[in-house]
Formats: sequence, structure tokens, C-alpha cells
Amino acid sequence: MTQPKWHLPVDRYFDPDPTQRRLAQELYDSVAHLPLICPHGHVSPRLFADEKATLGTPAELLIIPDHYVFRMLYSQGIPMEALGIPRSDGGPVEQDHHKIWQTFADHFDLFRGTPTGVWLAHELREVFGIQEKLTGETASDVYDQIVAKLALPEFRPRALFERFNIEVLCTTDAATDPLLHHQAIRASGWKGDVRPTFRPDSVVNLLTRGWRANIDALSQVSGIAVSSYRTFIQALEKQRALCKSLGARATDHGAQSAYTTALSPTETEAIFQRARRGEANPEDAHRFTAHMLMESARMSIEDGLVMQLHVGSVRNHNRWLFERFGADMGSDIPERSEFTHNLHPLLDKYGNDTRLTLILFNLDESTYARELAPLVGHYPALRLGPPWWFYDSLNGMKRYFDLVMETAGLYNTVGFNDDTRAFPSIPARHDLWRRASANWIAGLATRGIVDSDDAREMVLDMAYRLAKKAYRLDQK
Amino acid sequence: MTQPKWHLPVDRYFDPDPTQRRLAQELYDSVAHLPLICPHGHVSPRLFADEKATLGTPAELLIIPDHYVFRMLYSQGIPMEALGIPRSDGGPVEQDHHKIWQTFADHFDLFRGTPTGVWLAHELREVFGIQEKLTGETASDVYDQIVAKLALPEFRPRALFERFNIEVLCTTDAATDPLLHHQAIRASGWKGDVRPTFRPDSVVNLLTRGWRANIDALSQVSGIAVSSYRTFIQALEKQRALCKSLGARATDHGAQSAYTTALSPTETEAIFQRARRGEANPEDAHRFTAHMLMESARMSIEDGLVMQLHVGSVRNHNRWLFERFGADMGSDIPERSEFTHNLHPLLDKYGNDTRLTLILFNLDESTYARELAPLVGHYPALRLGPPWWFYDSLNGMKRYFDLVMETAGLYNTVGFNDDTRAFPSIPARHDLWRRASANWIAGLATRGIVDSDDAREMVLDMAYRLAKKAYRLDQK
Amino acid sequence: MTQPKWHLPVDRYFDPDPTQRRLAQELYDSVAHLPLICPHGHVSPRLFADEKATLGTPAELLIIPDHYVFRMLYSQGIPMEALGIPRSDGGPVEQDHHKIWQTFADHFDLFRGTPTGVWLAHELREVFGIQEKLTGETASDVYDQIVAKLALPEFRPRALFERFNIEVLCTTDAATDPLLHHQAIRASGWKGDVRPTFRPDSVVNLLTRGWRANIDALSQVSGIAVSSYRTFIQALEKQRALCKSLGARATDHGAQSAYTTALSPTETEAIFQRARRGEANPEDAHRFTAHMLMESARMSIEDGLVMQLHVGSVRNHNRWLFERFGADMGSDIPERSEFTHNLHPLLDKYGNDTRLTLILFNLDESTYARELAPLVGHYPALRLGPPWWFYDSLNGMKRYFDLVMETAGLYNTVGFNDDTRAFPSIPARHDLWRRASANWIAGLATRGIVDSDDAREMVLDMAYRLAKKAYRLDQK
Repeated sequence: MTQPKWHLPVDRYFDPDPTQRRLAQELYDSVAHLPLICPHGHVSPRLFADEKATLGTPAELLIIPDHYVFRMLYSQGIPMEALGIPRSDGGPVEQDHHKIWQTFADHFDLFRGTPTGVWLAHELREVFGIQEKLTGETASDVYDQIVAKLALPEFRPRALFERFNIEVLCTTDAATDPLLHHQAIRASGWKGDVRPTFRPDSVVNLLTRGWRANIDALSQVSGIAVSSYRTFIQALEKQRALCKSLGARATDHGAQSAYTTALSPTETEAIFQRARRGEANPEDAHRFTAHMLMESARMSIEDGLVMQLHVGSVRNHNRWLFERFGADMGSDIPERSEFTHNLHPLLDKYGNDTRLTLILFNLDESTYARELAPLVGHYPALRLGPPWWFYDSLNGMKRYFDLVMETAGLYNTVGFNDDTRAFPSIPARHDLWRRASANWIAGLATRGIVDSDDAREMVLDMAYRLAKKAYRLDQK
Repeated sequence: MTQPKWHLPVDRYFDPDPTQRRLAQELYDSVAHLPLICPHGHVSPRLFADEKATLGTPAELLIIPDHYVFRMLYSQGIPMEALGIPRSDGGPVEQDHHKIWQTFADHFDLFRGTPTGVWLAHELREVFGIQEKLTGETASDVYDQIVAKLALPEFRPRALFERFNIEVLCTTDAATDPLLHHQAIRASGWKGDVRPTFRPDSVVNLLTRGWRANIDALSQVSGIAVSSYRTFIQALEKQRALCKSLGARATDHGAQSAYTTALSPTETEAIFQRARRGEANPEDAHRFTAHMLMESARMSIEDGLVMQLHVGSVRNHNRWLFERFGADMGSDIPERSEFTHNLHPLLDKYGNDTRLTLILFNLDESTYARELAPLVGHYPALRLGPPWWFYDSLNGMKRYFDLVMETAGLYNTVGFNDDTRAFPSIPARHDLWRRASANWIAGLATRGIVDSDDAREMVLDMAYRLAKKAYRLDQK
Repeated sequence: MTQPKWHLPVDRYFDPDPTQRRLAQELYDSVAHLPLICPHGHVSPRLFADEKATLGTPAELLIIPDHYVFRMLYSQGIPMEALGIPRSDGGPVEQDHHKIWQTFADHFDLFRGTPTGVWLAHELREVFGIQEKLTGETASDVYDQIVAKLALPEFRPRALFERFNIEVLCTTDAATDPLLHHQAIRASGWKGDVRPTFRPDSVVNLLTRGWRANIDALSQVSGIAVSSYRTFIQALEKQRALCKSLGARATDHGAQSAYTTALSPTETEAIFQRARRGEANPEDAHRFTAHMLMESARMSIEDGLVMQLHVGSVRNHNRWLFERFGADMGSDIPERSEFTHNLHPLLDKYGNDTRLTLILFNLDESTYARELAPLVGHYPALRLGPPWWFYDSLNGMKRYFDLVMETAGLYNTVGFNDDTRAFPSIPARHDLWRRASANWIAGLATRGIVDSDDAREMVLDMAYRLAKKAYRLDQK
């Protein structure tokens, strides 16, 4: 078997100029071992609720749940079934995880130069200690090594949480979630700091499949019979309070556009009742979401939860795939976004209120310099989130730094979110951000734009302090 | 007191590679001491009309009038009142300029990596000779040093104009302005070349607050009773002639979009009369502005004034702030722009006319490579202005060079405008442009894209010759 | 006469850092001499049909047919007539090609830093062996040298084809073209691999000038009387088959937008009949083109021809120029594009079909990372074409690599197309792509993003293998 030498260069991701590289390394080294602040992501709290939880097979860990991975394989003609992705109709898919892994490894070349490629390299090397490059030839051997590691107690989620040096991890939790895992974590006495985040999309977006059932679930979980807009708001407020009592510092809102508007009580109630009767149309849903963004800002001012808004993804673009495999299958495609006009109503009402922190995330980079940086560089209530999704990458970060920072100012940004479902990819993602940040700051310093004192402060801010402050994790 | 060593690196803003940096330095040195051509900006001619004019306190000089500065402080929750920004209702604001300065210095970290940060560093170091880095600790000492400097005769505006080596400075003057300061400058015998620029926005934009009063002012200043579209045009033409007689070489037009259209005489008159009665609606205003852009191009062909068009800013986005503090308070937010279709009517009529020079400015960089570079790289009447406003920055210039030059060609651009209200920032802004230009050209030369003869010519063009030629300042 | 030393640096276009430059050179050297794959372009097959064909005068070769060249000269006020561009009305234009060349050379500075500038330098130096830099002073001497070269047998098109090491060259041929030149090439026994590409725009776009005559030509060439939508489709299918029989591997489709839709048979027929009566309106044309894109995808699935779609150009923007000189005169201006929604109907129907390869080309770079990369990184039927037209440049490629590759993955792109009418510019264009690719990959490798084994494979893919595979030129 070929056994390629394989390592992760210590100075990876830094610009090649020796002066900049040396400084980038120095700045990176100063923050590389700081604890990880994870204020937004999609790791399941279930992993930490039970101290005996495990991470499954290598395929269950790295392929089957990761839409970054299987969308790329699918784009090259590999059927989802061959990767073990469960079908909605329960039809047959590959069950042999060894074979799934082999298919993945045979095509690992597809990930050359991609964020997934570098995250996986980091995970294999640093988390699992694999010494070989993954190829079709080494696939089986690598598989066996991972299996062996996963069987060890130190590869259980809680152990990895500690080894990863995670200071705090916030999950994302539906408004209808009773938060039992979070309660179990708190009750267990384990010292890991895991907190929920309140995400009401599935009850706010009137066109969500199963919206009516979600409303019933909300009634049940909150103990408030949701039969009107008024009771709907009461139930949401009650669930926010529950979430907050379990440590939540933030809410999260997904919307196709950033459109905001204030509806009259009459219209709000009328739309809500149409939705209850299954008669809401797309325009109803669009206006209701826009209204609820303003209402959520109002609640945030009252209860102090930081508000996050993720905008711009057309979900489940591939309808055939959606019917066959369900949501989140790698076919969410961004569209053009607009903030200057869409956020105007909300900003008119709450933009000058320093009690509100509204963090914006976006998938249309043409708005970075044109709209988002000027907005967050002016309104006290606004902050800009880190590069999201497809832009959580070396070039995505580089463009973000270049397009945003001059106008927004570093201190109107909020550091990093890993935003991942893939728990063992967390260190890789933070490491990439910290390296990219160090390299950017080193670039400023070697060009005489900031001095070395400023550079040292800035890298600390980006690696650790900004996220903690923006999400109010530094507050009791 | 800590006394940080503080200097501006001589090779600042250049790429770190030693070969490119050496060449950039050499190219920069060849133009660093050329006179400044300032063909567009917002410095008040009042400063030069009276030889005894002074620049006020450090806060009046660097904070209170500079929306780049206070928007950033405001975005972090510092009230405008604490910065001494006058309220429209005359309500109380901070009067102690020493204290305003302290607040500013306490938060000077916010400007790390921003254009404002590097301009201020340049001003403090090079214009005022400050040897300390501005911090909360050094604030008071720096303040006193600036006060002492401002009291000296060599810090009066005319003296600085000469020290800055300004060859020509064009101001921006409302169509209703009697240009008394300009007349006073000419009458004074002072040799500084200060010229007006004709800007008719306040009478062309029918929704401007006080439009009716502006029309009356136009009647008064022109001696033509403006009661119809015909007399409106006559008054504008008379004022353009006055402006030209005082040295003007250009006009300037601000519009939210680049939309142009030719209205019929009947419609033009009808809209104008509705406006006089206070009945113009947004669609009227939109169409009238579009029509007046074409009419202004016609006038430019006749009187030879270069036409500037600034597009894309949604003015006074923060309505609460606008009501409280008035216009130009840091809350102008760009929106998406479009040129390919919007400029079509104007280009159909005048785009092939070599007598017209229409210089375009824009806040939506996605149009640079897609629309603007192809347009100015084809139509003889078009030129592209330098990166404007938020893009008057190192990254803004870098992106402009990268996105525009290959398709537009350098010679369809017009060099640099400082476009500033902040008189003492002029050298800093030109220095930044000259360094960025030298670095860009050095990058081309070290990549074998241009040879060293071309490089030497190009840097001269960018630093000095293009602006002079485009604005016809090389003509008698 | 001044005789500037003039050469093309061997390491041109590479980043200046010595480590990256060394690796870029090594990677480039490994592919510099590979055969050229030219799967899409606009060279006339006439050049190869007759072994005695010649390339005309230097002005006929490099200026008169090249809209990149004359648009830039025109933008600076040089009349098209002075460059010998034929007028539609047959009016007088410059006939002295020596004089046209002199005008061009006098203004060669305009091409500093442009792709045209570097292509021309390559052509003059490498194809024609010119040792002097082109200037007003050397113009005449350079002209005479080129004339002397063009008279030699080794400068006939077939000889250059072989010297350029072109493995395959695909032309672009109207649906109405009887393909006589292609038949002549095949009949001649010459071993050069020249293939047609089926381009039906002139019969699909109902608003094309002369559409009715084109339909008649289609009837004639296909032998099918096109009197209905059904017979129209039959004729197209017959011509596709002819094209394929002469070696075609692809079709090409130009459209202002990427809008696709499936019309009912009734509507299709109604629109087609309105068009036959000269009564089709812009909405008819828009919907018919959208429908025909889907119909073309269906045909591609059936006959195996790869489908190319070029989107985003507003043709003949300068109407005065169009009336005077005709189409393709340098005034095609891009507009904003949209793919996420526009392609949805086509992708719903065919996006998961691995028999289809649809290659997208586009002039709105804001869609690269936002829409195109996520789409081609998911749908098996989609691939992304190389940077097109204004973006076939060093910066255009750099932005494409940075914006596309992380999300699309290299293997959902298709290598390079020169897309040129200018036959002798082909080596220059491929050389630029190969250098830009090598430099990009070297940048990844020096940053530890890919290892050296991957780097060597990737540069081979980009320079040669991807194009061959995507266009099915590796299939019998």
C-alpha cells in the first residue's frame, strides 16, 4: 500500500511572504489555545445529555449527516442512496458503512481546495490522529483506525467537548422543543457549558410543512392554548423565558428575505386565522414573517436575548430530492438579498435602541460593503455576523475582512460562529478562523495600517472576546 | 504617562513582497511631491475668502463636522450629543471640546483598520506634528498640542493650502449660491487656485425640503423670475455661466438612481407646476430628475462644463436621527444601482458626442466590472470617477483597480478626487491614493504585465495628469 | 529610432513571492507544452477549408475584426471609420491599412494593463517574432515585419494550427449553416481536428433581425418546410444530427437572461405563428427563448450533445453605432443576472439527469459565489464554464478561482475556452489561463491547502483534462 507522508503544515493558510507569515504565526500562536466560544451552531444537545452517548460509525460521523460532503459527491453523479442517506419513503439505501466510506474516499479528490477538504484533513489528523492521506487505497485502513478511536471513552462527546476546550456551546432549538436534553445536561452535574438558542421559524413561517402540528406542539409545550395571534405571542414569550432559564443568550431567525414590516393587529389576527384554517398564501406568510421579525426585536429588548437573523437561502431548491430525502440535503441555494430598504421599518422603530443587539447573517456578499457594513457602522442596535455557510471558508473570510471591516469597523462584528452540525469539525473551523484572522491582521500590520500593539489586541478580539461580548456571554 | 513610540512607516500600504515593495516605493517617490489636483470636494470656500480665517478647536476640526468619525462612535452607543453635534431643536449638547476630544480618544480603537484611522494618523503626525499615539491617556496632551498649532499663522487655511501644495481646489456650490466667497477669493489677490462647481440638486430634486424656497433663491440670485420650466432652465444656464466665469470646470449631480429619460415639454411643465404648488409626488420627482440629467448633459455640451454624476445613496436613512440632527449625519446608506439600462436614454442621445465628458461615481461595486467598466470602455462621452465615499479606502481602491482597469482601461478613468469636507485630511487622502496606485502598478510590473517605462508613465497619470485632463484643468 | 528592449518575462503573471513563484513556474512548465483543447470559439472554419487561405494584412488580422481593440480606441474618441471598420451603408472608411496600423500603434498605451494588451504582446512576440515594443515610432517597422511573415507558407492557418499544437478546435455555427467549410475540411484529408458547434440563436430568438429569412434558410438547409412549431423542432433536430455527424460535441445558446419555462403546446404554436406573421412581441420572444432552452436540454439528453448557455449581455447597446456599423461592434454591455429562480424550471425537469451536461457562462460575477457555485456544486447536470468575455483576463480568472472553486469544487468546472474570433490569439489566451491556473494552485500549495501531489494533478486538469472530459472529446 502507498503510504503518503501526510501532515498539516504548522503555518498553513498564511500568506507566503516571510514577514507577513512570521507575524501571522506569532499572532495565531497567541490565541491558538484559547477556549472556544461557540455561540451559534447545530450540534444536538442529545450528545451531551447522556454521558455514554457515542458518535456512531465513521460514515455516521462524517458523511451521512454532512450536506457539505454529500452534495459534492452527488453533483458528480453519485446517488444519495450509495452514501446511505435515508429515503423519506424508507426505500433501500446502502447499509454497509465500510462501503459508503470507500465510495467517499474514492472521490476525496473532489474536495481539493474546498473548506470541507481542509476541515476533514484537520479532523482526521488532529482529532483522530490519522497519519495517512485519505485515498481509495487507504480508505479501509483509515476507516478501521477511526472505528477503534470511536470506541474509546475519550472519544465520547463530553470527553471531546473538554478536549476541544469549548468554553460554551450554544445549540439551536425549536420553539416547540421542551428542551429535555438541556434540562438533563443541567441536572447531570457535568460542568460543560451548553446552552439553548430559541428558534421559532417552524411556527413563524406559515408555509412550513406541518405548521398546524407545530402550533399544537407549541400549545402543548407552553401550556398555552394557541388559538389567536395574542395567545401565539404569549406562548412564544413563555418559551423564550424557559429557554433563557436554561442559559439561552440568543434567539435565531431564518428568513428568505430581510423584509420587515409592522402589521396592524387586525391584519395580524386575520392572517393567523387564515393560517390556522390552512388558507394562508405566500403573501400572507411573507408579511407575517416580516411582522414577526419586528415583534421578535421588541421581545429581545424586553428579555435581553440577542437576536440573530439569517437571510437569503432558497430552501430545498431541488424538489425531486426534497420529496425523496427531505430537507437540508445540500440543495439550499442562495438568492440576491437586500437590507437597506427591507430592514428600514425595523430600524426606524428599534435601530437606535442600545438595548437591542441584532446580528445579521447573509449569503449575498454583494451586500457586505454596499449595505451591511454601512448599516452596522451606523445603527447602535446592529452587528454583523461572521461569513456564513458557503462563506465559512478561507476565501469567504478574506473577502469578508476586505469588504466589511473598513466601513463597519471590527467592533461592529461579532467574531466567529462555527454554525455546524458536525461536532468533531468544531476545532477545525475555529482554527481556520483564527488563522485567517491572524493572517489578515498580519497583513494590516506589515502594511503599516495598524501597529503591533493594535494587532495583538485585534487577534484576541477576533478569536475570543468579540463573540463572548456580542452574545452577552460575559454577563451573569 | 505611557508614551508609545509612534511613527508612520515610510513604506506603508505597500504589499510586503520585497520586490514589489521596492518598486512601489520607487514609483511612489516619483510622484509623492507633485502638486495636488483637487477637482471635486466639499471644503468651504469661506476658509480662503478671509485671510484671517481659522480652523477652530480640535473637536471642531476633526470630530463635529466629520460624519465618518461620529457615525462610528454612534454605532457603538455613544450619543451624538456627547460629541457636540448640534441638535436641530437647539437642545443641549456637550460644549466642552476638551471633553468631546477625550471621548473620541477613549474610543480611538474603533478606527483600527479603517480609512478614518489612517487619515487621522496622517493628519496628527504630518500636519500637526504629534509624536504620540492617540489614546485615552494621551488625549489631553495631544489636544493641547493641536490647539497650540492652530493658533499659529502657518495653520491658517491659506497657509495650509500652500503648504499642502494644492495646485487647484474645486468646491461644490449650490445653484442658488451667489458665490460671494469665490468672488472674494478672486478679489483678494491671493494666488491660490480655488474654483466653484455647479451643483443644482437642491432645485432639481423636487422633494428636497425647502424646494420652493430654493426656487425663490434661484430667482433672486439669477435675476430671472422662475415661474415655469422654461425660466427654470434659463436661470440654471445663467448660474452655470456665473460659475464658469469664476473658474468652474464642472457640474455635479447627485441622484438616488442613474435613471435618465427625456420628457415631453408638456409633461416637464406640468410636473414643474405641480411642484410649485407643493403637489409633486415621488414619481414626478423621479422622472424630473431623470429628465434633468439629460438636460444637464445638453447644457454641458453647450458650455463645456464637465458633468459629474454621483449615484446610489439613500440619504438620511435613520429618520429619528435626521429629525434630531439634520442631514449628512452618517446615516446615508447605499443601495443597489443599475447603469446599463438607466443610462441608455442619455447615452442614445449624447454618448457618442466627444464634446461631453460625463464622469460617473457609484456606491455599488457589483456594477464596476459588470456595467461601468464596459460602458466607459466604449462610449466616448463617459469616464469613471475614482472609488467614492466608503470606497475611498485602501481596499476600495484595490478592488476598483482590479475590477475596473482591465475592461475600462486606465485612460477612461480620471485619477483621484478627495471629495472631502475635512480640509486638513486632503494630503492624507491624496497620499493614500498615490501609495495605492504605486502599489497596484508595482504589482503589474512585478508580474510582467506592464514594463517599467509604462509603469512610470502610469503612476504620473494616476497621481496628477488624469484628473487635470479629465476636468479640463489643463485648458485655458 | 528608439529601439526599446522588449521581452516577455518567463515568469510573467505569477505572484511575486519567491516560494509561490517558483512553484507556479514548476506547475506551469509541466503543462505549458500540452496540446490545446479549444471546445468553444468563433474562429471561422473557412480558414481551414482551403489550404491556401491567408490571414490578410496586419490590420485585417489584429484590428478590424477585433471588437476588444477598436472599442477601446473608440472610447477615446477615435472614429470607427479611421480604423477601417466597414459601414453598413458602404460609406467611406479608411482603406490604407498601414495608416490604420499607425493610428492603433499611436494609441497602444490605452491597452496598458488590459488583457488585450498582454494578448497582443504575446502574439507579436511569440507568433510573429517581433523584437520591438509597439509604439508610434516602431509602428511602420513592425507592420512591415508582420506583412513579411504573413506571406510565408508557415503563417497559413493550417500551418499555424499545427504550430499552435491545437488538438481540437470547435467553431460556432448557425443552425442555418450548411456546414460546407466543415465538410470541405473533412474531405480535404487534412488531419487537423476542427468540429462544428450547433448554435440556434438566430432562429430561436424571435426578435433577431431577419428571423423570417432565417427560418426560410432553416427550411432550405434541413429540407423540412418549417411552418409550425412541430416542423421547427424537426428541422432543428435534423440540423443537430448533421452537426453531430461532422464531429460536433456541443450546442451553444445565447440569451439575455437565464429564464426557463415550459410552455404548453398551444401557446408554443401560437407564439410561433405570431412570429411568422411578424407579430411577436418582446414577451413572446422572452417566453419562447425560455421554452426553447428547456427543449434544447431535452434534445441534448437524447442526442448527447453538451449544452452551453451564455447569459447576460445586452447586445448592441449603442444604437447609433449599431445602425452605422452593425452587430458585435464593442457595445454589448452586461446586465445583472439571476440563476437561482430562472433556471429552476429546467433544473426541476432535468437537473438530476446525469445524461445532461449544461455548461453555464455568465457576465455578472456577483452570481459566481452566490448562485452558480452552489448550483453546480449540487446538480449533477450542471457545470460552470470559465470566466467569459470581459473576465477572460488575469483578474477575471483570479476572482473566478477565489469565488467559485471553494463551493463548486474544481471538478464541476470545465477548464478553459478561448472563445475567440482572433485565431492567432489562441496560444496567448491558453498560455494566460495556464499561468493563472498554475499561480492559483501554487498559492493553495504554499498555504498548505493542497499538497504537491494534488497540485500536480490539478494543473493538468485545468490545462487539459477538464475541458476534454466536459465536452466529451475523450469519447469516440
